[in-house]
Amino acid sequence: MQIETVYLHEGRKDVTLTAYIAHVSSELPASGKRPAILILPGGGYLNCSDREAEPIALRFAAMGYQAFILRYSVYFEGASDWGAMDGEPVPKDVSLFPNSLREVGQAILMMRARAAEWHLDADRLAVCGFSAGAHNAAMYGVNWHREVITDYFKVDQELLRPNALILGYGLYDSVNESTERSNPMDRKMMGFKNVALTGTAEPSDEVKHTLSPCLHVTKETPPAYLWCTAEDTLVPSQQSLRLALALANAGVPYELHVFEKGMHGLSLADQATSMSQKQILPDTAKWIEMVESWLLQRFALDIPEKSFLDLMLEEAAAKQ
Amino acid sequence: MQIETVYLHEGRKDVTLTAYIAHVSSELPASGKRPAILILPGGGYLNCSDREAEPIALRFAAMGYQAFILRYSVYFEGASDWGAMDGEPVPKDVSLFPNSLREVGQAILMMRARAAEWHLDADRLAVCGFSAGAHNAAMYGVNWHREVITDYFKVDQELLRPNALILGYGLYDSVNESTERSNPMDRKMMGFKNVALTGTAEPSDEVKHTLSPCLHVTKETPPAYLWCTAEDTLVPSQQSLRLALALANAGVPYELHVFEKGMHGLSLADQATSMSQKQILPDTAKWIEMVESWLLQRFALDIPEKSFLDLMLEEAAAKQ
Repeated sequence: MQIETVYLHEGRKDVTLTAYIAHVSSELPASGKRPAILILPGGGYLNCSDREAEPIALRFAAMGYQAFILRYSVYFEGASDWGAMDGEPVPKDVSLFPNSLREVGQAILMMRARAAEWHLDADRLAVCGFSAGAHNAAMYGVNWHREVITDYFKVDQELLRPNALILGYGLYDSVNESTERSNPMDRKMMGFKNVALTGTAEPSDEVKHTLSPCLHVTKETPPAYLWCTAEDTLVPSQQSLRLALALANAGVPYELHVFEKGMHGLSLADQATSMSQKQILPDTAKWIEMVESWLLQRFALDIPEKSFLDLMLEEAAAKQ
Repeated sequence: MQIETVYLHEGRKDVTLTAYIAHVSSELPASGKRPAILILPGGGYLNCSDREAEPIALRFAAMGYQAFILRYSVYFEGASDWGAMDGEPVPKDVSLFPNSLREVGQAILMMRARAAEWHLDADRLAVCGFSAGAHNAAMYGVNWHREVITDYFKVDQELLRPNALILGYGLYDSVNESTERSNPMDRKMMGFKNVALTGTAEPSDEVKHTLSPCLHVTKETPPAYLWCTAEDTLVPSQQSLRLALALANAGVPYELHVFEKGMHGLSLADQATSMSQKQILPDTAKWIEMVESWLLQRFALDIPEKSFLDLMLEEAAAKQ
């Protein structure tokens, strides 16, 4: 495996695209050209969580896909400063919309530009996000062909198209979110997220509308796999249900799994990504196996019916 | 992830230990000290198959373990030269027993010596092999405390102990093997393997006895997970059954899964490791999920009941 990290902005080290490229070998299937998964960690636009970064990349790499992690523009450099939650957050230009959204486009363009070098199947690129990363991924899924992206990059629109979305426990409808959240600590964290992304804890209705991918789904939105947990209080499961409704109404192929158990931010819900025992939930952890099956329907590696060795052995047997 | 390749013999590039070390982060569980899996690819002591190397390492890395690949001494450098199968193979010193066996000990010693640097739990090192790699791993499992290893390394014996074995479709009883194989092509390949490992296509009964881990199992053999397929004609399933019998008789904890379907050498039996569609077998592919469960019984990461964040949120809630 070759691991390479690219900085997306000159003179800045915070926004990176890290490629995990499989061993290229004549003994391995399709190792010269594989579909790729671009991973956007969550962290409320405050940070990019390590729990939703490399462990996810390794899981997709193990399935046979090239994996990429995009650490997009967020409020803090490095881990979140939870102590700062107590005060009134001050907006920072770096994390304001649409910076992080456009970085997804930048990553997709770079992946297509370097497809040969990174051994990618450039027609099969999925974007996979968690929490705020799922919001960013969904925003990209509904906006890749709109002015916020196309006017900025001014390239052939098809180069920007994502071919699939994989979305875990994201917030997709800001217009209706506040009525669905009861815990004051959760509301405080969401206010901080709003400051990071919009500059204010209470964005206008217009801004909320812009930031709600649910309200912008069209036939151009790529096929999507959604999952979340019904017990999530920070981002209630209604959010995934609303996005599923919008996809169903638009006729976009989609799959949705709502697991009963589990708090927000479970990542893989296994030991590789859990900081406490209560995050380890074998039933909920099935989401990644289900996404593996879902991907096989559209991202399967090109593997022949018979291998070179099969043919050679058949030939030898025929000679006997 | 940090990937590092170490050469085990000065002046030689064919024998390597490659470490896949997880991202060390305060946001990730136990990332400073994790159990490790040492992977021995198969290839009939003729080569070390890429299909049983990195894809396996990625799968164990995704479970949360540090993964290592040992490319031990074999007959060919690089991929096997199938054309050479037609001739009479000439023995080479490099691949003769016990070179490859001792390299397992060398790898284990190096992992324990560099445990802090590689973030290993030095008391939880498993050896995982496939086919010839499973033979080598099983041989190490029954010989790590015997003279062939201990007299060679002359170190504290406990430094050499493997803590678990994971063995896929290996040959463990050379004394009885020939009666269990009907296909002439398979017999030819086994003859070549014998030349590589012993210098002759027809080794003596004494050599066969030495090379049969089944016949040397004791209470010092570590707990073992075995799997194979009943349809395997190259290394018949009787081989795994015989080793399971020996483990059961010695009172060694073990688990065995014989899947009905599948040829020899399936590796993960999924798209990441299959060169033809017939190697993709979802039922047989369950072996790796089953080994994940088995490892959790003895190699689980140290994860607290409550995380730092849980405690902080509880404290904040109590203040309100």
